[in-house]
Amino acid sequence: MPTRDQARASLVLANHILANEGVLDAFGHVSLRHPDNPDWFLMARSRSPALVDTADLLEFTLDAKPVDPTLTVPFGERVIHGCIYAARPDIQSVCHHHARAVLPFCISGVPLRPVDHLGATMGATVPFWDQRDEFGDTELIVGKPDEGRSLARALGPHWVVLMRRHGAAVAGRSLEELVYRAIHCCRNADLQRQARELGGVGSLTPGEIEKAFSFNLGTRPVMRAWDYWAARLPRRTTARSSQSSGGPEDAVTPP
Amino acid sequence: MPTRDQARASLVLANHILANEGVLDAFGHVSLRHPDNPDWFLMARSRSPALVDTADLLEFTLDAKPVDPTLTVPFGERVIHGCIYAARPDIQSVCHHHARAVLPFCISGVPLRPVDHLGATMGATVPFWDQRDEFGDTELIVGKPDEGRSLARALGPHWVVLMRRHGAAVAGRSLEELVYRAIHCCRNADLQRQARELGGVGSLTPGEIEKAFSFNLGTRPVMRAWDYWAARLPRRTTARSSQSSGGPEDAVTPP
Amino acid sequence: MPTRDQARASLVLANHILANEGVLDAFGHVSLRHPDNPDWFLMARSRSPALVDTADLLEFTLDAKPVDPTLTVPFGERVIHGCIYAARPDIQSVCHHHARAVLPFCISGVPLRPVDHLGATMGATVPFWDQRDEFGDTELIVGKPDEGRSLARALGPHWVVLMRRHGAAVAGRSLEELVYRAIHCCRNADLQRQARELGGVGSLTPGEIEKAFSFNLGTRPVMRAWDYWAARLPRRTTARSSQSSGGPEDAVTPP
Amino acid sequence: MPTRDQARASLVLANHILANEGVLDAFGHVSLRHPDNPDWFLMARSRSPALVDTADLLEFTLDAKPVDPTLTVPFGERVIHGCIYAARPDIQSVCHHHARAVLPFCISGVPLRPVDHLGATMGATVPFWDQRDEFGDTELIVGKPDEGRSLARALGPHWVVLMRRHGAAVAGRSLEELVYRAIHCCRNADLQRQARELGGVGSLTPGEIEKAFSFNLGTRPVMRAWDYWAARLPRRTTARSSQSSGGPEDAVTPP
Repeated sequence: MPTRDQARASLVLANHILANEGVLDAFGHVSLRHPDNPDWFLMARSRSPALVDTADLLEFTLDAKPVDPTLTVPFGERVIHGCIYAARPDIQSVCHHHARAVLPFCISGVPLRPVDHLGATMGATVPFWDQRDEFGDTELIVGKPDEGRSLARALGPHWVVLMRRHGAAVAGRSLEELVYRAIHCCRNADLQRQARELGGVGSLTPGEIEKAFSFNLGTRPVMRAWDYWAARLPRRTTARSSQSSGGPEDAVTPP
Repeated sequence: MPTRDQARASLVLANHILANEGVLDAFGHVSLRHPDNPDWFLMARSRSPALVDTADLLEFTLDAKPVDPTLTVPFGERVIHGCIYAARPDIQSVCHHHARAVLPFCISGVPLRPVDHLGATMGATVPFWDQRDEFGDTELIVGKPDEGRSLARALGPHWVVLMRRHGAAVAGRSLEELVYRAIHCCRNADLQRQARELGGVGSLTPGEIEKAFSFNLGTRPVMRAWDYWAARLPRRTTARSSQSSGGPEDAVTPP
Repeated sequence: MPTRDQARASLVLANHILANEGVLDAFGHVSLRHPDNPDWFLMARSRSPALVDTADLLEFTLDAKPVDPTLTVPFGERVIHGCIYAARPDIQSVCHHHARAVLPFCISGVPLRPVDHLGATMGATVPFWDQRDEFGDTELIVGKPDEGRSLARALGPHWVVLMRRHGAAVAGRSLEELVYRAIHCCRNADLQRQARELGGVGSLTPGEIEKAFSFNLGTRPVMRAWDYWAARLPRRTTARSSQSSGGPEDAVTPP
Repeated sequence: MPTRDQARASLVLANHILANEGVLDAFGHVSLRHPDNPDWFLMARSRSPALVDTADLLEFTLDAKPVDPTLTVPFGERVIHGCIYAARPDIQSVCHHHARAVLPFCISGVPLRPVDHLGATMGATVPFWDQRDEFGDTELIVGKPDEGRSLARALGPHWVVLMRRHGAAVAGRSLEELVYRAIHCCRNADLQRQARELGGVGSLTPGEIEKAFSFNLGTRPVMRAWDYWAARLPRRTTARSSQSSGGPEDAVTPP
């Protein structure tokens, strides 16, 4: 198990990787179940993920209340995270995003399914959740506990749930697995869309999905990819990294 | 209300953000109603937005005449801005662009409409304006007051108007809202086009559009995104920013 | 008229701009009629355009023979340039490219036509040339004078000719016009393809094309865009630009 | 023939070029038959290609066993390389990748074929291999000698083989030819897909393919492109390249 400090550093890195790889942009967020207390989770204050630094991280209970009093503003949709952690003890990390790759599926209602061995890491089934079904006209923001619980029910035993006309929630058994799944889910979406327009999409068999899921979520592929994505992050210059105080401009991830 | 100097600095930043995010390129322009005089507006001289600096900003009356005599060349299409400010006292900022994302809609005549919660910030209706209808064969440039007024009428009470075979005009109740709407309008266009090719586009309900419009145009999301886009701008090196005189190459926003 | 030295510097810049904007890549080339002798033209030795420096420029007669003896290797397809200059005294600059944007038209045989005011700078008609028609099975390289003359005939009085399964040749009345037309032709191709898939493409009227052609090829828009594209080129660092000898790595244009 | 040291340096460069041009990403690998012993081949340890340095290179026999005992972890799919070298003495270099450009063909089953003169360097026929046909449900990883031999049989006398729902294997008579073919194969895939959606794809004649194959695989075009792609690699700063020890972050190829 990572220490709290290691967990916090990894969560900042995950913020930057997911922004740099096109999963998160101005909006979206990623969280980590607390390494010392499974009833808490770590998540940044309301800030674009590319700009998040360790000083921005807050701790929340599973009902999305700050553990310590804070003057900073948390994300309005943190209930997504709390409700999924509460429903699924096996899940250690959650991401909510509006990635451009998956939105055409959220908008059209065409189901996302694994089209290659890496896409199999989404799992065999990617369910839809339509906030309208249970809550009528909303601003399409998951801000209330009832909405968060409804979304967690739609996720069920799966790993990714598509939110109609809004985005996706992705879960992982570790932070690194979450990052790996979120990025490969976007890749699968792009490939599925292009293959469908080109000439149709065949299916992986249930057996192929199960085997490819296990193989590709092994420590070796997951960490090889994590190291690669971390190395792709723009580097701070020597001059800048010698500054001790991280201002807002210190964690910038350019396009 | 911002001071005139703050307004000028923000307008330069908006030029750079809109260029860096793919809304403006060699052409297009963004303006701001003057903070001290609602009958004037601020706009750069004729120059690509990525290269604009504060020294390039001019002041115009609503009939698009320079407030002070100037030897520099203004944009030929500044009447777009003047006519929209004259018709709509609620509008504080205007952008005209030829963004690649929206042009396929301008060319095909397929209506643009909100496909997700962020696209709802365009408003429920995005009207078309066809210069040919009223003016016959033109060079597809809006240079005459009559043309500007016709375009402003087509915009009507809405926030975005598509100009057939040419581009778009976008309006906002603040500079930050304008930037936010212009970027999310391009995003919506990309997503709508891809969803349509993938499997069709459902509709947001009028209630969803209204709620998502209000929520997503709140100060918090608008400023979170503004900070993010500003942080994505390429930084000048220390050596270069210590130079006092900003030559043409000093405000460059590479691709 | 520019001096020979100015012409050479501009031609190097045009090489870098066309590479940086995605018109040229490892292959393709751009030339300029000699400012002192209309029966000669300037063109780089066989080298990727992003890497070309002034020392790489050679002078050729219109039958594509080097004016001075040289040990360096010229482009095999320089006859394209010589034959177009010979056939069209009004043309001062020529580019041959395989840009990704126009290749789908060269491959499918769908005609390229102006879809917006900037695309009108291609001219009303973009003819096709199929090397197979006159020369049967070839390696799809225009290396022989007969092939170059056939291509120039296909260009006729127009400004762009698409070469089936190969690429395009573009011409301009100045180097700056050539660069402007080549880039906007690629932009038009992208927009036409996307609009067609989205919902169809209407036509500009002959009058609109004529007016937009004249307006947009005025000095002001052409030079505004030239300055913008030049500013987008990656800058050499101080350390490197102080080196007097330009090795192959000195004019690199990263992606 | 290159010396062993030259071969190793070139193989590192090929890793970086293929990553920078979008053929390889977190996964995929490229190898080179040993310049001194045709029964051995050179290949990196299990690491993302953008991060590979000379210290990462290992030597393998054609049955994919390390020549020297090593504590580092080799790629699980190195049998692809060994089996192709064993079956095809004319092949000096092999690459296995999951490039986004070709995956839509691997997924849809639409055959890839040359659509322009540069695509002709793939050869006239690009066969498919479906691991499922011979091996049933697998994790879609080619890890066993039987699987590698089956894939090599599917490649047959050709130069590229598409692996259903997985990726591709590409071969070359030299490392430079391999890199050239792998990149142009991706380019051909993008163009074929777009041309097909635009209006259909005509065929190159067998004679055109043969001639364009020979011409474009000549030393001059292959080396011009190699120099271009090498120049596009991000450069290490002076400070960093003076460090003697190459840590993981020393060979990073940003996006």
